[in-house]
Amino acid sequence: MTQVLERGVTFVLGGARSGKSAFAEGLIEASGMDATYLATGRALDDEMSERIALHRARRGSSWSTVEEPLDLVEALQRTCAANRAVLVDCLTLWVTNLMMAERDLAAETAKLVATLPLLKGAIMFVSNEVGLGIVPENRMARDFRDHAGRLHQAVANAAATVYFVAAGLPLKMKG
Amino acid sequence: MTQVLERGVTFVLGGARSGKSAFAEGLIEASGMDATYLATGRALDDEMSERIALHRARRGSSWSTVEEPLDLVEALQRTCAANRAVLVDCLTLWVTNLMMAERDLAAETAKLVATLPLLKGAIMFVSNEVGLGIVPENRMARDFRDHAGRLHQAVANAAATVYFVAAGLPLKMKG
Amino acid sequence: MTQVLERGVTFVLGGARSGKSAFAEGLIEASGMDATYLATGRALDDEMSERIALHRARRGSSWSTVEEPLDLVEALQRTCAANRAVLVDCLTLWVTNLMMAERDLAAETAKLVATLPLLKGAIMFVSNEVGLGIVPENRMARDFRDHAGRLHQAVANAAATVYFVAAGLPLKMKG
Repeated sequence: MTQVLERGVTFVLGGARSGKSAFAEGLIEASGMDATYLATGRALDDEMSERIALHRARRGSSWSTVEEPLDLVEALQRTCAANRAVLVDCLTLWVTNLMMAERDLAAETAKLVATLPLLKGAIMFVSNEVGLGIVPENRMARDFRDHAGRLHQAVANAAATVYFVAAGLPLKMKG
Repeated sequence: MTQVLERGVTFVLGGARSGKSAFAEGLIEASGMDATYLATGRALDDEMSERIALHRARRGSSWSTVEEPLDLVEALQRTCAANRAVLVDCLTLWVTNLMMAERDLAAETAKLVATLPLLKGAIMFVSNEVGLGIVPENRMARDFRDHAGRLHQAVANAAATVYFVAAGLPLKMKG
Repeated sequence: MTQVLERGVTFVLGGARSGKSAFAEGLIEASGMDATYLATGRALDDEMSERIALHRARRGSSWSTVEEPLDLVEALQRTCAANRAVLVDCLTLWVTNLMMAERDLAAETAKLVATLPLLKGAIMFVSNEVGLGIVPENRMARDFRDHAGRLHQAVANAAATVYFVAAGLPLKMKG
């Protein structure tokens, strides 16, 4: 792996079980910066708890962890600092949580993008690409796909570096 | 964006809400050619009408619009011209319409590919990649996926330039 | 097509109907090596039989064929040889078969990866990327997606060369 972590925003997009989170964690660990894992997921059921535990075991004890399902911008403002790398994992879970809470997705996306240039240190966003399968049959899944896709475009536009990860291999799309 | 529009066939493939149509529109607007939007979709319900209106608002008034759900080859023959760029948006909707009308997809694909070298100006096809999710449970969705995949291969083979778009970022696959 | 087949492991990942198998077959035919098609699929129903017949018609008579739905490692050990190219088509069907037979997926993946460096000749794995759509609603499909994703990461890590294929066009991810 010859990629290095840059200051500012890095966006890692990939499929389920593509190795995107491990790739992002590896970039941060190689950087020597202080590391925070900002989890947007909640341990609502056994399956999710299991996934969170797996992520935690892989990262080791040198990471601090913040959980914030909804107010991502405020959590970033509290956490980001000059020599700190914050890994937001992941944006699609944030979209899900915002939809459940009936928040305005366009407003939340705009607020996030407006805040990013004001934050210090390195920020990595990890997210699932979900738009490359058959059109889902129910409207909520289609709305979710639309919200996630628009957020991904906005974050990629704000990012200095964008990777697409498949089968654990990163492909640089920007930067 | 340093990409430029070439004469002949350009194919832009991407996921739902990947920014593929906006990328294609941007290439055409930067080219200074006369522009036609060839819509294969029909405003059958509110959701589709909303999407078409959004596309229309983004493109502005300098574009002419043609709607043709089925006879794409004939519409291209009527529309294409030496200094004109025609944006076909999108091939997956055309596949859907052909299946609903019980047309022979292999014959339609062959006819399109045979016609492309005879057309003047620039032609851009936009389409959704739909084959990267779980195998759909119903046969019609699997057939759709097969038809779309075969058409994509044929159009990519005929194209001078092929882009894969994710999160608004183009990746050149050919050309 | 300027790609050439290398000794050792090549992994071709792509969507349904992306042209990934035809791309892999083309690499093998251009290599001049003896060729074996190692099919993991079983002709359980008409749809699958049809797909297998199509694959067979395309490859021609110079290929030998081996069918092995479960014991892939043993089949590779019997088949691989110094001047032989073996095409395993495809890993996702193998995952399906292993799940149906209630095998331990982590153990099977580890055994495959441990065996690969010991095999002679060229080995190509073809597989479907299935993690880029909406999260499936049923747990078995989610488990399948997890198993396939982990296997893909392991095989990509063991491979000298990895391609992602879309619309018939290869994108080199590694090598």
